[in-house]
Amino acid sequence: MEVIDGNRIAAEIVAELKAEVAAMHGRKPCIALVRVGDDPASVSYVRKKGQTAAEIGIESRILLPPVTIGQSALEGLVDSLNADPMVDGILVQSPLPAGIDERAVFGRISPEKDVDGFSPVNLGKLAQEDETGFPSCTPSGIMELLSRSGVNLEGRHVVVLGRSLIVGKPAALLLVQKKAGANATVTICHSKTANLPSITRQADVLVAAIGRPEFVKADMVKPGVVVIDVGVNRIPDASRKSGYRLVGDVDFAGVAPLASKITPVPGGVGPMTVAMLMRNTVKAFRQRAGG
Amino acid sequence: MEVIDGNRIAAEIVAELKAEVAAMHGRKPCIALVRVGDDPASVSYVRKKGQTAAEIGIESRILLPPVTIGQSALEGLVDSLNADPMVDGILVQSPLPAGIDERAVFGRISPEKDVDGFSPVNLGKLAQEDETGFPSCTPSGIMELLSRSGVNLEGRHVVVLGRSLIVGKPAALLLVQKKAGANATVTICHSKTANLPSITRQADVLVAAIGRPEFVKADMVKPGVVVIDVGVNRIPDASRKSGYRLVGDVDFAGVAPLASKITPVPGGVGPMTVAMLMRNTVKAFRQRAGG
Repeated sequence: MEVIDGNRIAAEIVAELKAEVAAMHGRKPCIALVRVGDDPASVSYVRKKGQTAAEIGIESRILLPPVTIGQSALEGLVDSLNADPMVDGILVQSPLPAGIDERAVFGRISPEKDVDGFSPVNLGKLAQEDETGFPSCTPSGIMELLSRSGVNLEGRHVVVLGRSLIVGKPAALLLVQKKAGANATVTICHSKTANLPSITRQADVLVAAIGRPEFVKADMVKPGVVVIDVGVNRIPDASRKSGYRLVGDVDFAGVAPLASKITPVPGGVGPMTVAMLMRNTVKAFRQRAGG
Repeated sequence: MEVIDGNRIAAEIVAELKAEVAAMHGRKPCIALVRVGDDPASVSYVRKKGQTAAEIGIESRILLPPVTIGQSALEGLVDSLNADPMVDGILVQSPLPAGIDERAVFGRISPEKDVDGFSPVNLGKLAQEDETGFPSCTPSGIMELLSRSGVNLEGRHVVVLGRSLIVGKPAALLLVQKKAGANATVTICHSKTANLPSITRQADVLVAAIGRPEFVKADMVKPGVVVIDVGVNRIPDASRKSGYRLVGDVDFAGVAPLASKITPVPGGVGPMTVAMLMRNTVKAFRQRAGG
């Protein structure tokens, strides 16, 4: 059994991007990071994105509109970033305050600067296998973890647990693409799925993204399975200073002995998301410069 | 075993739309049908679309640019239809002549007039379950055939054979949606799938869309399966005046005795596509009038 080291693989990608950016002449890529409010997780995510950008040599601009900002003012801010020729990528950190239509804000970002890949156009391009689009970061991070861990997906059966717009559906669309590194047979399961264990036990690769702590147990997988655990769940833990610890959607202790490869939580999929955001930003820069 | 009568169900939908349009005051919905060249199948499809529009009370404008039209002139024609306030829906009949970038032409159609549902925005909206979008016509016709035949998909296992952008992928996205009439567990199979029969035999509902004549045989399904056959394949038949006959992707004679419900070819999915195009056109009219 091999634990897939997301930190190491993300660091590889960051190092590759750093070399790529260092070789650029003139202006460097720039990402705008918009954070509304002080949700602790959001503060931490945006800080990490800014730090990784700096490490690569990507300029970042952090915008902190007041938590009282309204829908139209926030969309106006997005418009101004869309219009700014010095900005290549725009990320609006989710979640937004209650009362803001998040989908409308994400949809407002110009498709060519939508490095988070949440606009309808980029989702559609992902379905169309149009390489000019920006696949969303967590699903493309999953693909990269698998390929850099030597997992050949062609013809293998991948079971995706979860049908969210952020992970399940775009991951399924990437896994089934007709190209090297993909070509998997894909099953999408969710809360309404009947006889779930009989399906997950067929998985050569299991992607768990349902947000239920340690939901996948040993009796739900077959020996030799490759497990990608996308879950990030806080559970109470009195032994920790914070009072909680993070666990995935997979019962790691029970499942790991059966798996051929498995990602840990934390340190699996999580670190990849930021790396893929940076890759999309460099791609946006190149496509805009080439346009 | 029940043969699902696509002609009857399509006629029901056409009758419903006719009543809906008859109740409208003022201007009626209008669809622009663009056909380039004289491909016999295209001539027949466009004629059928115009006839069905007329039956419903939808105005149609048939545009026949010369087969020598170039990319930019064809895109200019689309632009003029996008700008025309009297046009609610635009359909550019596929296939376009060699040398034309079909995806670029489809992508040029305004998302709010893209009643064929092939633009990236409408594909993305389908993935997002955004009801303002236009799902492409064959997949939404499949959903309608199933619901009007009393097939409850919730938690059932649907196996989709084929991953095309026109059928397989959007059908999978519709089937897995989190809403009444959908909520299926979905597996997408294709040419690279290993052990295909062991997967298709698990299907409660099998959607065959791979373009291989009579590919699905009796030993690939389980008793009681519901079969939706999207294939339209010509095979030589000396006993016909035309010299050919149409068959689906399913060996109807072999599979039908095992199935609880099955669509024939022709007369199954085919008639639904035109009906769904008309429904999208009426929806486009209402959304534009409401905007």
